[in-house]
Amino acid sequence: MIQKVKASTLPGFLELLPQDQILFNEMMDTIRRNFEKHGFLPIDTPAIERTEVLLAKGGGNTEKQIYRFTKGDTDMSLRFDLTVPLARYTVEHFNELSFPFRRYHIAKVYRGEKAQKGRFREFYQCDIDTIGNEKLDITNDAEIPVVIYHTFKDLGFDEFTIRINNRRLLKGFYESLGITDSVEVLRIVDKIDKIGKENVRLELLELGLTEEQADKIVEFTLITGTSEEVFKALEDLNIENEVFNVGLTELKQVIKYIEEYDVPVENFTVDLKIARGLDYYTGTVYETSLDNYPKIGSVCSGGRYDDLASNYTDKKLPGVGISIGLSRLFYQLNEAKIIKPKRKSLIDLIVIPMDEYVEDAIKLVSKLRLGNIDCIIYTEEGKLGKKFKYADALEVPYVVVIGENEVKTEKYSLRDMQSGEQEELTVEEIIEKIK
Amino acid sequence: MIQKVKASTLPGFLELLPQDQILFNEMMDTIRRNFEKHGFLPIDTPAIERTEVLLAKGGGNTEKQIYRFTKGDTDMSLRFDLTVPLARYTVEHFNELSFPFRRYHIAKVYRGEKAQKGRFREFYQCDIDTIGNEKLDITNDAEIPVVIYHTFKDLGFDEFTIRINNRRLLKGFYESLGITDSVEVLRIVDKIDKIGKENVRLELLELGLTEEQADKIVEFTLITGTSEEVFKALEDLNIENEVFNVGLTELKQVIKYIEEYDVPVENFTVDLKIARGLDYYTGTVYETSLDNYPKIGSVCSGGRYDDLASNYTDKKLPGVGISIGLSRLFYQLNEAKIIKPKRKSLIDLIVIPMDEYVEDAIKLVSKLRLGNIDCIIYTEEGKLGKKFKYADALEVPYVVVIGENEVKTEKYSLRDMQSGEQEELTVEEIIEKIK
Repeated sequence: MIQKVKASTLPGFLELLPQDQILFNEMMDTIRRNFEKHGFLPIDTPAIERTEVLLAKGGGNTEKQIYRFTKGDTDMSLRFDLTVPLARYTVEHFNELSFPFRRYHIAKVYRGEKAQKGRFREFYQCDIDTIGNEKLDITNDAEIPVVIYHTFKDLGFDEFTIRINNRRLLKGFYESLGITDSVEVLRIVDKIDKIGKENVRLELLELGLTEEQADKIVEFTLITGTSEEVFKALEDLNIENEVFNVGLTELKQVIKYIEEYDVPVENFTVDLKIARGLDYYTGTVYETSLDNYPKIGSVCSGGRYDDLASNYTDKKLPGVGISIGLSRLFYQLNEAKIIKPKRKSLIDLIVIPMDEYVEDAIKLVSKLRLGNIDCIIYTEEGKLGKKFKYADALEVPYVVVIGENEVKTEKYSLRDMQSGEQEELTVEEIIEKIK
Repeated sequence: MIQKVKASTLPGFLELLPQDQILFNEMMDTIRRNFEKHGFLPIDTPAIERTEVLLAKGGGNTEKQIYRFTKGDTDMSLRFDLTVPLARYTVEHFNELSFPFRRYHIAKVYRGEKAQKGRFREFYQCDIDTIGNEKLDITNDAEIPVVIYHTFKDLGFDEFTIRINNRRLLKGFYESLGITDSVEVLRIVDKIDKIGKENVRLELLELGLTEEQADKIVEFTLITGTSEEVFKALEDLNIENEVFNVGLTELKQVIKYIEEYDVPVENFTVDLKIARGLDYYTGTVYETSLDNYPKIGSVCSGGRYDDLASNYTDKKLPGVGISIGLSRLFYQLNEAKIIKPKRKSLIDLIVIPMDEYVEDAIKLVSKLRLGNIDCIIYTEEGKLGKKFKYADALEVPYVVVIGENEVKTEKYSLRDMQSGEQEELTVEEIIEKIK
């Protein structure tokens, strides 16, 4: 006898039961529908790329976490995000694309990171980006929060906040304090919600900043209020730095356009704490938090960058985009029981034939399907109780049992599985009722 | 200056431009909708599995073509089909599933085969399977062609034929000729459409069969006619072999049920030539061909198997299913220009603001979106001609230009990009018109 192989997935890989998968797909469909109706075009790139392409930018963690292998002489890897494939795609198909190129991409990415709860080695990212050819108007920066707003509304959330900031504003402010290399400062400031202002101050001092510089940065970072109040406070700083002022102008424009797009004022805010750790971003930056679940962290982040694809081309391709880490988001929402599916079952009804009535059941199913009722028959052997249990387990809302009586009278007792109620109905009445 | 990396996909990997991707997604959505409404539940398994799991069955080509790698101490590979992951999934989650377990799975699989036109190393498979616990009723075999029928109808085809046969029938027939090992015979007979009956006869003789055996097999294989005629011819053979007769009974039942499911008689047929090369199948087998495009070959194949997961469990899990190789099908249909998208653009309209009218354009977009018109604004610098070209390239059906006049009068000239006609309309009239 052949030894059996253990049937198990690898650790760190998310796999759902069908009922959860229905819910997951519902979320993915909602996101996709919103991306599409806001004019983003679908792309789908290979999960495998040449390693040289994926690692063109280099970077320690990426290189360590990447799934890399050779086939024949080819050194290839699984993508670890959707941004690098977008850069490669945009350059490869440059002459066939129209700019601004608005694309969405919903797909799996792979990172061989240390397995931990809620972190997955394979996960879905849902990205939108708008890529310009040489230039990209600031209105595109305002479009992004509009998409975020409608997406999260449609996902069933009311209380969420899109936090918006501008990296130029920060960079210019740091420059005005005499700090020219802002990358490390940004990395520290970005953690202020997690580690607190005291620790940010300490880390800034450790970095070599003076007490005055550190205090001013912390003070600046914690400016809050309505957009108008924040803008007023920023103007009152009277900073004569061009980068700062360009950033401020951009931020004001973005906020103004968002308002004109009718995004409710309670769903977005200027938040000077948002820095986004990546040195990749150059202008507007976004994070989104669910007001009642701060522990989940940002559910949708991104920003504006000057140059998407400098590793592959001399063309300047500025862009702006965001990403939703769907697998992680789903897992957290599902664990916290925050989300419920609209439909627990994808079908409306199961027809259960008594022994010799299989053919009648098939005919009934056929008629119901013509009436747009999604239904199946259950024809396995067993007691009636077991058959009802099947319908129950799949959370199918209705069951019809068909036997001699039903075939004679052409009336069928439709059982509502939730209430347990039964009604004697004709085919047409069943169709009417379920619709 | 840093050397640029060449932006290119690996050979053998399909990647589409957005316009083609829209069409591809439309097909995938149609397939998915049909799978769902016939009661198949979604699953989504990791693309990476332990190599031991994927290669439990062994087999030369699979092992050669698989993308295999190690991370840490783990030997892992990319899945090469969706059947092995289904087997692993069903065993792993056995206690949480309800049987018959009807699942669909639409996902990418990976095979490092020799690159050739229309063959891809990464491709989508769209699978449905119904898995029984110990037993599975024959009605499930009849359900499969029903799903195939509705799927291909919805994909826009009218002239296609679902070819149905039964492996037991063939096995029993060969046994009645004194041939006990039918695997090689099946492999040869399966090629009859490709290589012709003379070559099949020759190969059977080479295999060691007698002239009489070979002639009878070829004669049997080429029996054609209506289902009734074929059944009559098979009965007239007066074969007293139990396996043959079980197969014949099954085939008759399946055909009868399909008829009762109202599948038109011109869309399915009993075809004794269908054997399916895989020794995996044990009962009903299916192939589907597009009548006007015989060169494309089978677009949807599958069958009944006795045991899904014998490599992982002692439980007997019989099943029946089919697979659509979507990437290959799409590629062939698209190359042959057989398919057209329902909507070339996912949005209805582009609003182009004259210089200072960006804010008015945003307000207009906002109103249109409230009226369920999917639209975007185009705000990049440039001449009007360039902006119209953008709308043209994206095949967006309507454009509105907004300037001083439009803002004053609140009437907008809606340009039909196909006909070139323009109409002066209010926001409400635009919404009305486009809907």
